[in-house]
Amino acid sequence: MTDTALAYARQNAPAFLEDLKALVRIPSISTLPENGPDMQRAAEWLADHLRRLGFERVSILPTAKHPVVYGEYLKAGRDQPTLLYYGHYDVQPPDPLALWKTPPFEPTIIGDDLHARGASDMKGQLLAFLKALEAITRTGSLPVNLKVIVEGEEEVGSPNLRAFLSEHRDLLACSYCLNGDGGIQAPDLPSITYTLRGLSYFEVRVHGPAGDLHSGEFGGAVENPANVLCRVIAGMHDARGRVTLPGFYDRVRPIPPDEHRENRRHPLRADSWWLEHTGAPALGGGELGYTPAERASARPTLDVNGLLSGFTGEGSKTVLPSLAMAKFSMRLVPDQDPAEILRSLGRYLEAAMPPTVTWELLEHASSRPAIAERDSAATRTAMRAFELVWGKKPIFARQGGSIPVVGLMQEILGVDSLLLGFGLPDDNLHAPNEKFHLPNFRRGVEVFIHYLHLAASR
Amino acid sequence: MTDTALAYARQNAPAFLEDLKALVRIPSISTLPENGPDMQRAAEWLADHLRRLGFERVSILPTAKHPVVYGEYLKAGRDQPTLLYYGHYDVQPPDPLALWKTPPFEPTIIGDDLHARGASDMKGQLLAFLKALEAITRTGSLPVNLKVIVEGEEEVGSPNLRAFLSEHRDLLACSYCLNGDGGIQAPDLPSITYTLRGLSYFEVRVHGPAGDLHSGEFGGAVENPANVLCRVIAGMHDARGRVTLPGFYDRVRPIPPDEHRENRRHPLRADSWWLEHTGAPALGGGELGYTPAERASARPTLDVNGLLSGFTGEGSKTVLPSLAMAKFSMRLVPDQDPAEILRSLGRYLEAAMPPTVTWELLEHASSRPAIAERDSAATRTAMRAFELVWGKKPIFARQGGSIPVVGLMQEILGVDSLLLGFGLPDDNLHAPNEKFHLPNFRRGVEVFIHYLHLAASR
Repeated sequence: MTDTALAYARQNAPAFLEDLKALVRIPSISTLPENGPDMQRAAEWLADHLRRLGFERVSILPTAKHPVVYGEYLKAGRDQPTLLYYGHYDVQPPDPLALWKTPPFEPTIIGDDLHARGASDMKGQLLAFLKALEAITRTGSLPVNLKVIVEGEEEVGSPNLRAFLSEHRDLLACSYCLNGDGGIQAPDLPSITYTLRGLSYFEVRVHGPAGDLHSGEFGGAVENPANVLCRVIAGMHDARGRVTLPGFYDRVRPIPPDEHRENRRHPLRADSWWLEHTGAPALGGGELGYTPAERASARPTLDVNGLLSGFTGEGSKTVLPSLAMAKFSMRLVPDQDPAEILRSLGRYLEAAMPPTVTWELLEHASSRPAIAERDSAATRTAMRAFELVWGKKPIFARQGGSIPVVGLMQEILGVDSLLLGFGLPDDNLHAPNEKFHLPNFRRGVEVFIHYLHLAASR
Repeated sequence: MTDTALAYARQNAPAFLEDLKALVRIPSISTLPENGPDMQRAAEWLADHLRRLGFERVSILPTAKHPVVYGEYLKAGRDQPTLLYYGHYDVQPPDPLALWKTPPFEPTIIGDDLHARGASDMKGQLLAFLKALEAITRTGSLPVNLKVIVEGEEEVGSPNLRAFLSEHRDLLACSYCLNGDGGIQAPDLPSITYTLRGLSYFEVRVHGPAGDLHSGEFGGAVENPANVLCRVIAGMHDARGRVTLPGFYDRVRPIPPDEHRENRRHPLRADSWWLEHTGAPALGGGELGYTPAERASARPTLDVNGLLSGFTGEGSKTVLPSLAMAKFSMRLVPDQDPAEILRSLGRYLEAAMPPTVTWELLEHASSRPAIAERDSAATRTAMRAFELVWGKKPIFARQGGSIPVVGLMQEILGVDSLLLGFGLPDDNLHAPNEKFHLPNFRRGVEVFIHYLHLAASR
């Protein structure tokens, strides 16, 4: 059965690619109100696709904002496990547009890569799974029971997913979750992600004078909220690159000494990798004492994501701005808790903000970090599936990004998640010129075909 | 002769106001390329106006960017002084537009004030002078010789004025300069400005990775240029609110002890004035040990004028930005030197910027601070003119803003400038809802009528 499905997948690879192109052409940007109709279009495209695969109870379930696509295929029998596949159909905004080499929503193949917003994160990974299902169901039957949810708010922090999972807890009951939003270390280095960082994303607005003032007439007499903002943001790190929020590191699990030694001796990615893949002038600048890969996956960080104040056009305007805004976010590692981080940030800001300004703090997103057992049945099955396709065992890896749903699945449905995805670290996620490595698309389909057969009870 | 001119001015006050409205309707924004045609229109409007007053050699003289309007009226005889009047016809951009209560280029009278961009800075002040000339020339003849220049680049730091003054040095030969771009302390508190702050306006751009990165995948491994920018800007002040650039205070003339004592005993503006006129939540936050008025006029300052980096739209985007930009400017006091400040800033940035980023510094504008003699003949004449109109002696005041042309007039033409203007500190210069106090417009016309007669040799 596996063989016929694999053969189908190879024969139909060109058609699989056309479907992927069709899906990435839909600019399903969840954060921009003007793309609301595109979100609906993407959800309908997926629902149709599931129906054509023979899924039942396919529906577009509403949330407070963007809907979730649901479908189920429960024909494997009661003694087979029920997997809940999780994916998302929304994508990041493409700005800054000027830096794209190809139109973000016109998929373009360059070399082995498909360039488009969402190609890797995660429409390519999502279709790798759906096409594995197509190969299996067209040549036989699915050996496990399967439920699928595809949400539309992952890129804005999944604000309505908690309520959705709670509301549909019975519908979504399952053995464990198969999360397709993962990645591997390199085209020839398959890997299984076993830790994820959490996320606390904030916006702080500092208000000074009631309106913009002339910096000559008033500069010096009145506090400048942009100066204050810079001071407050700068104060969030100390000279050793550590975050200064009170208690920030209290719950951080240290990297095990043997893992740290191994990271230093055989770094997964050499400094040259980081320099090549980012174009940064030099490394360093983060927390002292760790390798770049550790700093980007096993240690918590605080990054400014956006700054805006005053006059930002060409030339000069001598304005003392009335408002200064920063968006900033922290990546959290096990066992940091977003609720504690929020309280800690509040205490820091209370102390750091002078009485000469007023300020407000918005929380845009929050998710818990996650850590998985390396020797669960699901993980061992995934390792075997990778090995069958790549011809080598995958390594275990920590991922720097956040997948809030992993924590929610544990909390609300009581199930672990297995991350099975095929993006690459240099896919330009969330950035201009996002791309998906097409050999990984083909291999991804094959890994899922193997996995779904291996996951069935004998 | 003065009396008939004053009578003419009173009779024609409504027509004067209509002309002022016509001029502020022209959006002569010098910093925005799209307003080029409006700049030309404003220059032509003024040239026509001078011709109708009987000026000769009226011309629109080109510079590398916006032209200067010139005209002369030299019929008073060789034994009379020749005054060079200086004004500007350009205005600041109106953004943020949403904060205007009335359309910025549709002059609107509310109470005693005319609301419009440029109403105070400085089309109202400019017309006060031109209407004094109209009143004098329609009822008699001008008792002094007069040259007029009105430039179009004051609001962008007069980048081409130096070259213009050098090129036309002979044409502009004069006894002294009458600069109409001044102001008084309050409607019932006439004042003569005797010091001006200088300006050093910069933009710094900090470059990190070659493109925007996903803050989850790369945050921690790669320096974030927005974090660096905040740290570098924050480091420009110490905990006592003093600017940390090396040698920044070396040439600052201390406030004379008697002036400082007087400022503390009888502050020109109480704290309540500053709070009312700015809407700031509290005062303080600037350099310790000085009154707000001192900090805003007699002490140098450093203000952020603009910040931009990363994602600034609604919601969240987990981006590690590749670029962070700040516009910031220093107000300089006698005897600070912009060239020294530039070198000092360069040294500071060299030391403060880490090797993990690259950066560039742009100088947008620079002007020297100025200080005038309190007992020159021109100053004494101005005091008398104010007294005749207001019924009380004006006080001496320091102005916080910068008028680069004052330094250039001294340097290139070798003449002092007398500042004679009628704006108010709460006119919302460079900010939304700029306004001009119309009683000051009428009184300004009268002060100029008196002044031009008193300035003539007997």
